[in-house]
Amino acid sequence: MRRSLSDLIDQGRGLVPAEIVLKNGRVFDLITGELVQTDVAICGDTIVGTFGSYDGLREIDCTGRILVPGFIDTHLHIESSLVTPFEFDRCVCPRGITTAICDPHEIANVCGLDGIRYFLEASARTVMDIRVQLSSCVPSTHMETSGAALEAADLAPLMDHPRVIGLAEFMNFPGVLMKDAGCLAKLEAFRGRHIDGHAPLLRGKDLNGYIAAGIRTEHEATTAEEALEKLRKGMRVLIREGSVSKDLHALVPLLTERHSPYLCLCTDDRNPLDIAEHGHLDHMIRTAIRLGAPPLAVYRAASLSAAEAFGLKDRGLIAPGKRADIVGLDSLEDCHAMLVLAGGVVADDAAFAARQMVAPVARRSVVLAEVRAEQFRCPGNLADTPVIGILPGKIITERLTEEIVPQDGDKRPDPARDLARIAVIERHGKGGGRATGFVRGFGMQRGAIASTVCHDHHNLTVVGIDYEDMALAANRLREIEGGFAVAAGGRILAELALPLAGLMSLRPFEEVRDALTALRAAARGLGVTLEEPFLQLAFLALPVIPHLKITDRGMVDVDRFEILS
Amino acid sequence: MRRSLSDLIDQGRGLVPAEIVLKNGRVFDLITGELVQTDVAICGDTIVGTFGSYDGLREIDCTGRILVPGFIDTHLHIESSLVTPFEFDRCVCPRGITTAICDPHEIANVCGLDGIRYFLEASARTVMDIRVQLSSCVPSTHMETSGAALEAADLAPLMDHPRVIGLAEFMNFPGVLMKDAGCLAKLEAFRGRHIDGHAPLLRGKDLNGYIAAGIRTEHEATTAEEALEKLRKGMRVLIREGSVSKDLHALVPLLTERHSPYLCLCTDDRNPLDIAEHGHLDHMIRTAIRLGAPPLAVYRAASLSAAEAFGLKDRGLIAPGKRADIVGLDSLEDCHAMLVLAGGVVADDAAFAARQMVAPVARRSVVLAEVRAEQFRCPGNLADTPVIGILPGKIITERLTEEIVPQDGDKRPDPARDLARIAVIERHGKGGGRATGFVRGFGMQRGAIASTVCHDHHNLTVVGIDYEDMALAANRLREIEGGFAVAAGGRILAELALPLAGLMSLRPFEEVRDALTALRAAARGLGVTLEEPFLQLAFLALPVIPHLKITDRGMVDVDRFEILS
Repeated sequence: MRRSLSDLIDQGRGLVPAEIVLKNGRVFDLITGELVQTDVAICGDTIVGTFGSYDGLREIDCTGRILVPGFIDTHLHIESSLVTPFEFDRCVCPRGITTAICDPHEIANVCGLDGIRYFLEASARTVMDIRVQLSSCVPSTHMETSGAALEAADLAPLMDHPRVIGLAEFMNFPGVLMKDAGCLAKLEAFRGRHIDGHAPLLRGKDLNGYIAAGIRTEHEATTAEEALEKLRKGMRVLIREGSVSKDLHALVPLLTERHSPYLCLCTDDRNPLDIAEHGHLDHMIRTAIRLGAPPLAVYRAASLSAAEAFGLKDRGLIAPGKRADIVGLDSLEDCHAMLVLAGGVVADDAAFAARQMVAPVARRSVVLAEVRAEQFRCPGNLADTPVIGILPGKIITERLTEEIVPQDGDKRPDPARDLARIAVIERHGKGGGRATGFVRGFGMQRGAIASTVCHDHHNLTVVGIDYEDMALAANRLREIEGGFAVAAGGRILAELALPLAGLMSLRPFEEVRDALTALRAAARGLGVTLEEPFLQLAFLALPVIPHLKITDRGMVDVDRFEILS
Repeated sequence: MRRSLSDLIDQGRGLVPAEIVLKNGRVFDLITGELVQTDVAICGDTIVGTFGSYDGLREIDCTGRILVPGFIDTHLHIESSLVTPFEFDRCVCPRGITTAICDPHEIANVCGLDGIRYFLEASARTVMDIRVQLSSCVPSTHMETSGAALEAADLAPLMDHPRVIGLAEFMNFPGVLMKDAGCLAKLEAFRGRHIDGHAPLLRGKDLNGYIAAGIRTEHEATTAEEALEKLRKGMRVLIREGSVSKDLHALVPLLTERHSPYLCLCTDDRNPLDIAEHGHLDHMIRTAIRLGAPPLAVYRAASLSAAEAFGLKDRGLIAPGKRADIVGLDSLEDCHAMLVLAGGVVADDAAFAARQMVAPVARRSVVLAEVRAEQFRCPGNLADTPVIGILPGKIITERLTEEIVPQDGDKRPDPARDLARIAVIERHGKGGGRATGFVRGFGMQRGAIASTVCHDHHNLTVVGIDYEDMALAANRLREIEGGFAVAAGGRILAELALPLAGLMSLRPFEEVRDALTALRAAARGLGVTLEEPFLQLAFLALPVIPHLKITDRGMVDVDRFEILS
């Protein structure tokens, strides 16, 4: 799709017909905020003409359409879509997302550089443009067992890869502040390049120290006050609306025209069910406008400002010389994509069918001994027991303390008080270590749910009331190479196999979406009240998000950055 | 001045005193537009703390000062300051200019890569940060004789130099549109990198073709309408206020908050007399505000937006992790720098004295045979004569036609009609070819002025009424290795030697400034009415600026891009 400079110049000047011309649409000019009636001429993957009339070899009528630059998701883990990069492409590109800046740290935690290379190879073959940030914290901390570890020396050889944009979210912010040698080695290796951040609740001078280490962008602000502090301290703030972490409502007051050049949008983690029901960045855009943000500010954040923040000088505007990433909308407010071009390719069924696929990696990655019911017992003498308190729609948890009296050397789940057992079992074939504890917030009354999607180490995590059902669900995931399962009364009620690294399905996204619907219904049958129990579960094991989490090594006090003894 | 990450983190967190702390000032926050009372902590060349209170090993009281990010001149030819990069540094850095993105194409036209390397070496030793764009059009066209020529293969080895930012102004815009092989080779070699533009009056689809070739920034717009078209087509527009080309008044209506993220400031060509009398970017800033532009928009254009436009992610904001380029002002409106830090160094006499100098290059570069009076004759049969019409304060000229009847085979100058002789004589030791013609606008009544600063080929150019005085002035420049001279009645009335490539003095900028005052006065004594005759003269030989110019090969019709026969 790359054309010679001669072709670009001649077609831009209108000396010869352009390859594609979008006729009769109106361009939303993100510089002036005006809607401008103009043709848009395209040569190969590049826009060559605007603000003029063009003839095209192919002309696409855009009467009634508003043309905006393709949307840029500035931070996400494609693995959270539970499908391959190719299915993710087919799922979200038709919604107008033409660039995704992904951090493949889920798969990297399972299989290391093989997983990153898989994404790099896939990214060269998708219709949308996928850029990869190199996962900076694999594992996220020293308090978990992952399938792989990546050091500075592992990452450095990939830093000049043309599809790589520096280091991905530097989650181990305590490690930065404490000047952990491994952290500093990575920061030093990427000094002067783009380093993305992740520092929830970090404020004041500690935030200054973190930013001074060279970190440029951040997406963990959950209040407007926190986001504004980060912005004013020079970070580009990526407003996130994931399936669990939903920050748009809190941050939308910041999305003014004044701030818009310095704000971006991202989804971080979003599953196909959510995408089907609500959308992706398109959902963020229409929600932000509905909440009162000016369309100019919102569309800048969705494209031009994002491109600038990540140094993607070749996109973000419908203008000559830019990538032909263009979305034809019904209206700015509704943001329904009626036409999408990604690098000059119309994102239709034919385009998706024409892609050359890359074979999946990391098959048979769920390696552990058969799980037995008694392994879910929770010993302990003290009645005062730390309990993970879920905040629905947040990945931050509360640290609760409940009095739970041991019976026969086991602190039992207590559905009446909404106290479920949570257990994490190492599943990378590294000894099968495990930890058990309590969680409040699921509302579960019986049975169990299990998952191998469990950030970031992706060990096997089980939440349940009944130990036999917990073992059943866990063992089912051993058989199907990972995924999700719901069990009760000695039966598997619903499941989804995720054989690519225990994280991604090999099936079309529509099938995955339907399976998630069935899983959600099955979980509700157990009394679960959370809207997205598997997604919420997935973040209970991530020890870089305050306040109380659990890994295969034990319960983690994130604020003190230590495992509870 | 580069410090370890450990030091940056610890000083940012306030665990140990910062190296320098600016106390009691107010920071102009370019994100929100607010003035914020805060300390600013600095470690080495980097800001590590804002929005907080810090202790410093050295504390600088900034009571009553407003702190803004250092100013970035986004396009200039340091040679036009007529002093070395070191004297330029000493002249403008104390005014708050902490970054200069220069195009050394004046010296490159004299001595090629040697000149570019001289600037690269000097740039590593100045207090301010000088970045170099590689001169794209040496010579500017095929219609002139320069001292050197640079092809794509010459430039490519320097493209990854850490102080290089892509290609400098691509002046040969007709060459781009006509797909000249040499032009396309350079554009292709730098495809995907920063390529700066230069396309005065180019509009419509021809502009589209030019931008589509990969050109990102531009500084030649002289009307708001032209600048707005370039902006909307994705170019970053650099508003220019040079000593001759003054576009600020015309473009300031565009300098709104909405556009400000996409606008920059530049000086292009500015001499020390002008800098002393009016200022540099500081002059642009206070003028823009006086003309009604919002201070937030102006200061963004002067720093943050400039940094973003050129991918200098390490500067443009007073924020942790950014270069400690900070200006302490008396007020936003007056923009007088009372304190300047460049990369953490206070820009004072001691800092300038501590620099390690680089030896000058391109001495004895004015190489031509002795000039004789009769060489200034202008033969021709037709009375209808093309005349270069000067527009004071513009580098664009008018193409006039005057009836000038030959006498004895020579069309004589006619002061009564303001028709002076102009002659360009090749001075790079390449045969001494010459051309003669007419210019209107100097108001000269007698004598002659001569110069070797004559964009971009920098041949010897003489304007005069009296052929003997013209020869005298020209021959004086042969003796003093180039420069400026004013002659009348058989005497040299004033002169300035520029022995570094015939372009730059080896003297302090204060001496150069005084010499320019004397030259200006001497020229006025000849009846010259132009405010800056030598600067205006310098652009009469530049055949990439419409409409009529003259080189050593002849009079050039720029619109038709050909030499008049």
